Amino acid sequence: MRPTNPLRPTTVVRAHCDVPCGIYDPAEAVLAAKTVARMVEIINGLEGNDTATRNKFIRCVTVKEQHAEKVKKEVQVIWSDYFKTEHLEVIPDLHNKVWNLLKIAGKNKQNVDAEAAAQLVAATQEFSDLFWSTKK
Amino acid sequence: MRPTNPLRPTTVVRAHCDVPCGIYDPAEAVLAAKTVARMVEIINGLEGNDTATRNKFIRCVTVKEQHAEKVKKEVQVIWSDYFKTEHLEVIPDLHNKVWNLLKIAGKNKQNVDAEAAAQLVAATQEFSDLFWSTKK
Amino acid sequence: MRPTNPLRPTTVVRAHCDVPCGIYDPAEAVLAAKTVARMVEIINGLEGNDTATRNKFIRCVTVKEQHAEKVKKEVQVIWSDYFKTEHLEVIPDLHNKVWNLLKIAGKNKQNVDAEAAAQLVAATQEFSDLFWSTKK
Amino acid sequence: MRPTNPLRPTTVVRAHCDVPCGIYDPAEAVLAAKTVARMVEIINGLEGNDTATRNKFIRCVTVKEQHAEKVKKEVQVIWSDYFKTEHLEVIPDLHNKVWNLLKIAGKNKQNVDAEAAAQLVAATQEFSDLFWSTKK
Amino acid sequence: MRPTNPLRPTTVVRAHCDVPCGIYDPAEAVLAAKTVARMVEIINGLEGNDTATRNKFIRCVTVKEQHAEKVKKEVQVIWSDYFKTEHLEVIPDLHNKVWNLLKIAGKNKQNVDAEAAAQLVAATQEFSDLFWSTKK
Amino acid sequence: MRPTNPLRPTTVVRAHCDVPCGIYDPAEAVLAAKTVARMVEIINGLEGNDTATRNKFIRCVTVKEQHAEKVKKEVQVIWSDYFKTEHLEVIPDLHNKVWNLLKIAGKNKQNVDAEAAAQLVAATQEFSDLFWSTKK
Repeated sequence: MRPTNPLRPTTVVRAHCDVPCGIYDPAEAVLAAKTVARMVEIINGLEGNDTATRNKFIRCVTVKEQHAEKVKKEVQVIWSDYFKTEHLEVIPDLHNKVWNLLKIAGKNKQNVDAEAAAQLVAATQEFSDLFWSTKK
Repeated sequence: MRPTNPLRPTTVVRAHCDVPCGIYDPAEAVLAAKTVARMVEIINGLEGNDTATRNKFIRCVTVKEQHAEKVKKEVQVIWSDYFKTEHLEVIPDLHNKVWNLLKIAGKNKQNVDAEAAAQLVAATQEFSDLFWSTKK
Repeated sequence: MRPTNPLRPTTVVRAHCDVPCGIYDPAEAVLAAKTVARMVEIINGLEGNDTATRNKFIRCVTVKEQHAEKVKKEVQVIWSDYFKTEHLEVIPDLHNKVWNLLKIAGKNKQNVDAEAAAQLVAATQEFSDLFWSTKK
Repeated sequence: MRPTNPLRPTTVVRAHCDVPCGIYDPAEAVLAAKTVARMVEIINGLEGNDTATRNKFIRCVTVKEQHAEKVKKEVQVIWSDYFKTEHLEVIPDLHNKVWNLLKIAGKNKQNVDAEAAAQLVAATQEFSDLFWSTKK
Repeated sequence: MRPTNPLRPTTVVRAHCDVPCGIYDPAEAVLAAKTVARMVEIINGLEGNDTATRNKFIRCVTVKEQHAEKVKKEVQVIWSDYFKTEHLEVIPDLHNKVWNLLKIAGKNKQNVDAEAAAQLVAATQEFSDLFWSTKK
Repeated sequence: MRPTNPLRPTTVVRAHCDVPCGIYDPAEAVLAAKTVARMVEIINGLEGNDTATRNKFIRCVTVKEQHAEKVKKEVQVIWSDYFKTEHLEVIPDLHNKVWNLLKIAGKNKQNVDAEAAAQLVAATQEFSDLFWSTKK
């Protein structure tokens, strides 16, 4: 029924439930990073200073803030709860990558910057790839 | 690098950001429903009344509560924000399906019931299927 | 002492506590809808772009957002937890009314529109009336 | 249509929206206090130590906690935002009443005590009466 | 190693954990008040209406709002949970001081006013001093 | 007036406000870690299975959960927002220390373990010391 839809995931994604229940998935982080980028795009496309535009501007900044925070939260959870010492042997610069990713997330809170948003999406996607590389 | 991993989604999943930015995805709802089911499974597997077990029992009930609530929230958002009148022509019983899904979510808060949890997972997966059927 | 005060409710209002404890009341939803309308009124009355005005504008948009969300939450809870199949026989278009109410709430988040705000207040009041009609 | 329903408030209740918009109502505080009392009643009626009962026990304690906190929050807002110096001339012991009310709310968090719950309901109702007495 | 640092507290600070565990500390309230003052300072220093400035303006107003609320919350907890009747004998105007402090916190939400911010910092610091005077 | 009180900090502590405003302080993290340890102590001292004890047990587990989460949040913020590349030259194992600290925080959520709680307090205190060592 749905195999023709290229946007639909064909496998089960997984997330973290904090018990732990062994369910982790960086998909929410990736999605949140993309939402930050989308907000930057919308904000930069706004013109004028009328009430409707200001209402939208404020709401987009708030959504940007919340999703940049969500990126930080989701990545931190997987980094500290899922990754074990054995993973560091294969991914020796994991800590540094996470650290830089969180810094870029903070930068996206403080600015409305398409370049920084693209970096956040890329870094989060790379983190997701690293995660899944340990699942093979 | 990752094509051999059957658990990894091969396409981009999408979610809702409330601006609206046109990003919707029932994946978080499905995941939350599965988390509810996992909590029921863990709780029903607990034995004894020692401190460690009671600590785990309380945490699992809390996670179950939060994720049942998340199912309700995510489904309600897609139902009210994404679905339009035109979709109702193709899915005439959409409202009733959502209503029953939310009721099952509430039932899972009030009970620790593997059968109800399985119903919640199935109903949420069906809702996800309905959503994606409109994207073809 | 207070019988002369026409604004004071003379009977006990009731709300939902999620256990369930059988306590439901749409009053919070109605109040939240009115708060949305009040925020729209205040925002539309703001003039100038000085610091104080911008501070107020931002706060009003935030309050509008929160209370539109509260309307959605409160109505959804009563709809999914309180209303039973038997009520649908008497109120056959309940689902559709709720669906439209939630859509209007979302519209009020996205806009600063007195007409949409009035619609939200009316729809929430009608929902409250439907609720109370089942209590007679 | 609804005049025969003795439970339905016949006048509009009002609440606080924090802008300020001039909307205050102690009804939410009263309702929250009653919810605390209802939780105490439910908890004290629970018997046995099976999974379903423990699930309910945990959820009732959580709801009790949240609503005792809500009582404190709602009362504090009206006390600090609505009441003015001129009211103190008519209600000279207002501060002390609020202080004791908050203490009883805390006591209800720490215990499962029907007597303390009844005191909380009474104190919150009295606070509500004081509020409305200033509206005459 | 650190004795030469004049900014570093040399003793253990303490806070409230709501069980109660006997841990109270007004330090978070003082810090929150200073954050409100810092936000007012930043906002008043902003110039222009470009995207970056508007992004910062919105974020500062939000942080100001959250920390003014935090001041209210922290002070209310210590006032209602820590202070006992015996303290009132030594600090007879405690209630009034708290009441005025909360009012100033509300004023700082509604305005961007360096004078009001300074009053909030002073009032919170005085509350902290009163608290510690009971610990001697 | 207060110099004789050994528990009172004699200097201003500082925290983070996320704008950024340049205010950081690990004191909240240290305090939260101590609260986790205090909860473990209280829980382990509970005896019996009566209603009052179960109420307290549930509340202590919840507070333990929240404060372990707060430790993670506060440490992550300082780690990613305050620490710069230059600090890594002086504290080369900073990332690893933070990673282990977060893991211990997670362990304290999952268990009621005085040894793990003591490790959390020590690790958080060490993190605080590292932070202040960069301020000299």
